[in-house]
Amino acid sequence: MRILGVDPGSHATGYGVVERDGGALRHVAHGTLRPRGGSPELRLHQLYRMLCEVVGHHAPDAAAVERVFVAQSARSALVLGQARGVVLAALGSLALPVTEYAPAEVKQAVTGSGRADKRQVALMVRRLLGLEQLAEGDAADALAAAIGHAQAGGLRALGALSPRRRSRARSGLAALRVRRAR
Amino acid sequence: MRILGVDPGSHATGYGVVERDGGALRHVAHGTLRPRGGSPELRLHQLYRMLCEVVGHHAPDAAAVERVFVAQSARSALVLGQARGVVLAALGSLALPVTEYAPAEVKQAVTGSGRADKRQVALMVRRLLGLEQLAEGDAADALAAAIGHAQAGGLRALGALSPRRRSRARSGLAALRVRRAR
Repeated sequence: MRILGVDPGSHATGYGVVERDGGALRHVAHGTLRPRGGSPELRLHQLYRMLCEVVGHHAPDAAAVERVFVAQSARSALVLGQARGVVLAALGSLALPVTEYAPAEVKQAVTGSGRADKRQVALMVRRLLGLEQLAEGDAADALAAAIGHAQAGGLRALGALSPRRRSRARSGLAALRVRRAR
Repeated sequence: MRILGVDPGSHATGYGVVERDGGALRHVAHGTLRPRGGSPELRLHQLYRMLCEVVGHHAPDAAAVERVFVAQSARSALVLGQARGVVLAALGSLALPVTEYAPAEVKQAVTGSGRADKRQVALMVRRLLGLEQLAEGDAADALAAAIGHAQAGGLRALGALSPRRRSRARSGLAALRVRRAR
């Protein structure tokens, strides 16, 4: 199962693709989309196209996008919302199932603490995926969302299992996290 | 010259198309787009497609979108921003020149007062375009943005004229407003 994580921003939108194969988590790609159009509508259109290209190229099965509740001001929330709307519309146009996660959920899944800072998240993403270098901020957050979804998806799928198998599978997920963390 | 006005909203997005032929202003179409998809990404994708269809059908030369600065909360600004971003990306994908107007500019252009309320705007839109019925709120605001752009475009084009011709042309625009208002 291939998962695309997206971290939309008003200037730059991070993306990250990871693959989950049974208990293993594999890095596929990550990057930052920086539209350079002259006007807001051209930049937003470019963002739409760029994200469609990423999806076309890496063919993920699902997408995870960070839910955002806070913003410094209504003005910055509006501008952030514009990029976020374009990201969601592009994913919707490709019929990709989208799950939204609160930032704390993503941090919890990746670092074990819902209050981790950006650097801790980037460090754990690097460890979990065995990256040679730290990913850039937005791309690291996007990878974190994808990792969080891979783990949450695993945990949600456990709902159908018997309590014993569920507990065994849960420790498998935990083991995955620990193994990757070394 | 055909102008599309758009009033993006989190639930409903109004649109209105007017034609300006010399001094005359003509109503072409208006309506409200209400995407009904099950998830945010499907609704936003639907909004994108619906707006592209409106543009394809009415073939405007330019678009006018209301600029928004205020929102009740950062949360509602984010959701409004999502719809707005999709509207701008769709217009950008069709290479339609977009001008953004402050709500007060639109009100001023249509009613003569930057502090007019929604009902006054709808009433003046009805008069200016000779509509049989009041347009629905969002569509009336979209038509108002299109009318404002038609008038602003006229006023801006005057910049190149001599002071005397400018003043004559300006009273022409004023006459247009008064004539349509009866």
